[in-house]
Amino acid sequence: MPYFDAASSAPLHPVARQALIAALDEGWADPARLYREGRRARMLLDAAREAAAEAVGCRPDELVFTSSGTRAVHSGVAGALAGRRRTGRHLVVSGVEHSSVLHSAAAHEEQGGAAERVPVERTGAVDAEVFAGALREDTALACLQSANHEVGTVQPVAAVAGACRAAGVPLLVDAAQSLPWGPVGGDWSLLTASSHKWGGPAGVGLLVVRKGVRFAAQGPLDERESGRAPGFENLPAIVAAAASLRAVHAEAAQEAARLRELTARIRARVPELVPDAEVVGDAERRLPHLVTFSCLYVDGETLLHELDQAGFSVSSGSSCTSSTLEPSHVLKAMGALSEGNVRVSLPMGAADDDVERFLAVLPGAVAAVREKLGAPVAAGRAAGSESLVLDVLGRQCPVPVIELGKVIGDVPVGGTVTVLSDDEVAALDIRAWCHMRKQEFVGEEPADRGTAYTVRRVS
Amino acid sequence: MPYFDAASSAPLHPVARQALIAALDEGWADPARLYREGRRARMLLDAAREAAAEAVGCRPDELVFTSSGTRAVHSGVAGALAGRRRTGRHLVVSGVEHSSVLHSAAAHEEQGGAAERVPVERTGAVDAEVFAGALREDTALACLQSANHEVGTVQPVAAVAGACRAAGVPLLVDAAQSLPWGPVGGDWSLLTASSHKWGGPAGVGLLVVRKGVRFAAQGPLDERESGRAPGFENLPAIVAAAASLRAVHAEAAQEAARLRELTARIRARVPELVPDAEVVGDAERRLPHLVTFSCLYVDGETLLHELDQAGFSVSSGSSCTSSTLEPSHVLKAMGALSEGNVRVSLPMGAADDDVERFLAVLPGAVAAVREKLGAPVAAGRAAGSESLVLDVLGRQCPVPVIELGKVIGDVPVGGTVTVLSDDEVAALDIRAWCHMRKQEFVGEEPADRGTAYTVRRVS
Repeated sequence: MPYFDAASSAPLHPVARQALIAALDEGWADPARLYREGRRARMLLDAAREAAAEAVGCRPDELVFTSSGTRAVHSGVAGALAGRRRTGRHLVVSGVEHSSVLHSAAAHEEQGGAAERVPVERTGAVDAEVFAGALREDTALACLQSANHEVGTVQPVAAVAGACRAAGVPLLVDAAQSLPWGPVGGDWSLLTASSHKWGGPAGVGLLVVRKGVRFAAQGPLDERESGRAPGFENLPAIVAAAASLRAVHAEAAQEAARLRELTARIRARVPELVPDAEVVGDAERRLPHLVTFSCLYVDGETLLHELDQAGFSVSSGSSCTSSTLEPSHVLKAMGALSEGNVRVSLPMGAADDDVERFLAVLPGAVAAVREKLGAPVAAGRAAGSESLVLDVLGRQCPVPVIELGKVIGDVPVGGTVTVLSDDEVAALDIRAWCHMRKQEFVGEEPADRGTAYTVRRVS
Repeated sequence: MPYFDAASSAPLHPVARQALIAALDEGWADPARLYREGRRARMLLDAAREAAAEAVGCRPDELVFTSSGTRAVHSGVAGALAGRRRTGRHLVVSGVEHSSVLHSAAAHEEQGGAAERVPVERTGAVDAEVFAGALREDTALACLQSANHEVGTVQPVAAVAGACRAAGVPLLVDAAQSLPWGPVGGDWSLLTASSHKWGGPAGVGLLVVRKGVRFAAQGPLDERESGRAPGFENLPAIVAAAASLRAVHAEAAQEAARLRELTARIRARVPELVPDAEVVGDAERRLPHLVTFSCLYVDGETLLHELDQAGFSVSSGSSCTSSTLEPSHVLKAMGALSEGNVRVSLPMGAADDDVERFLAVLPGAVAAVREKLGAPVAAGRAAGSESLVLDVLGRQCPVPVIELGKVIGDVPVGGTVTVLSDDEVAALDIRAWCHMRKQEFVGEEPADRGTAYTVRRVS
């Protein structure tokens, strides 16, 4: 069954599996102990640290192993902020960071700090100058992902790192999505990553803190991992993580070229095959294996279910039924349609045939969902044909834009449709719909119940 | 090579190995996802939680998997303290807790909270009434280990839990050392444990929070594990941890009886075989597999090295060369000799023959260390034979008591030896020496340099 969600978690790489099983026998003892089994564990740990550091492009003593990428981010952000508390308590992050960064920023605000979220362009990338403009004298830390986890857009890390260096602000790079493809260039100060994203085992993250960066680990004292990652080392998994990172990097260039061709095919074909579908993210500056698109008039969870039934495992940043950070804060920050969103992230080794099958199955799956959702219009009409009021109060995404799509043809070019909706996603989706359908979004204002969104027909 | 340090980390149990390898293929996907691989991962996670909960004796929804026992303690203490902040900020712990608990207490104090360390008896156990007496109206949390990690003494958890319940204070039990042998009885509120202590893989801890206990997870938000353990679940290791806990419990009663006989043998024979050796900890209320003894006039690290050379891997709570929490806070709290300390903790399956060989090797190893340390007396003598001054300024443990042992016979019964020392361990060791050698510790007072400790010869 084709698994196309490597960005969530990659299947275990054969090298990781082999290294893990070998290390189970050699690496279960406490590396802090001086007897034979402890010394053997220590040697494995040291070797893994050297291998991982070489793959990241840092010194071994700058890298510690955490229990996950999320923990690396939490500890890295908290430690860097505390290390520069005297400078100030201002934190800069992009608006499309992973939830671990955004939740760290929120925790910082709860403790009285300030956090600024830099907006992104429609591609999902920050503008390096806009990012640099957010740096202040009291900025303690800036965070920018190397590439976005939902849409694959590569961020201008080197330019932003240069601006941060010039301003004397350390930059933390969340490299979770890009590290499988190679080291992160640029003069960054801290870096985080997650083993199970590159085909290593779960339970291992990386936190790199460059020499000279002020850092004060938070939480109760613990002597493990230079005091930056408390708890007994997850050694066999660490050994497997380091070994597989090297193996993955050795294959990266060739596999990236192959997968880039497959994702380019998806980017080109989806809009041809599926009516009212929009591919999002930067077409050029992007991860090789990841492509995201949104389909109008489709509920993402239902579409995922259809695709799962057809044998394809993909992910969605869509709203409506998921519990957290939904609708996708990334798509929202980009101003992209959040409904009917599908993220395809190919694991290394993904087969050409499977991608072709996916493209063959997708149009039918989207059509099936649209048919299920093709509910009757629940609209009251005002007198006169120049303007029309569509009452979809109480109806959830994607019904508001489905109904809007049905009635826009009922007013003449130059006429308006006013949508009354109390679904908060409507604010995003009606704008995105206008962008896709080349109609004009006139504005919104509070109504007796919900909000009135006005759209002018221009074509 | 006999490995006798199970209390640090146990070799991987065959069931853990088997379950881990099986779960590598089935459990690498994100259990939060709805496609097939995600649902399969979720089923594995749910089954592991049920198995672990049954072994602990709690409801599955009361148990989360953390990345280590240390993380479970850090998160458990912080969350319970925050959950009861309105009640007060007073924390009660025993003085012989694991460093993860004591460091959590120190972090609480740094943040303005109060922490009280309840003293222990000479066996290493708290007195339940003394512990109960430390509870106050503003006590937010109490912590007591189920059994001590350095000397094996079992704590009166049920009695203390009863007192805590009566006072309305939640009790957190660190069960890291005892859980391999069975569930912890008593009406406790929170419990922590560590997989690699029972032969499961590293990278997995347990945090149990009983229903009804106020708990507010600290740190950045994360939706995994009921919001109590951030980061992607370490699923194959979790599966292996749960499976091996069940397996270990199935074997526990029989193996406990066998190992108890072996450790009883060590307890009885060491004082016969090694002059000036003292077995510490409670002779009856103790873990089945763990025995600790201290040898006068011996440096612990050197003895460990001798035993390692002879093929035995043991641990030491001794001072002098180790970096953290040394000399052992446990031995210090018990008033036991900290020098020449050896902890033997037998893994399940430890062979009778290996224990016999250990007992055969030990006397020679201790004698070798004593010979190496048999430094000449660096003492200046006062006039008169009734009292004598021993100047060991600048000399480190165990030299002060070695020299004291050499000169005590030079004064008549009733006479005194005053030891001038600037080694802070001397305060502990000279008292412990007096206890062991049935001499009288008269007192101590500041000297021009260091401290003057006076000992009266009574036998």
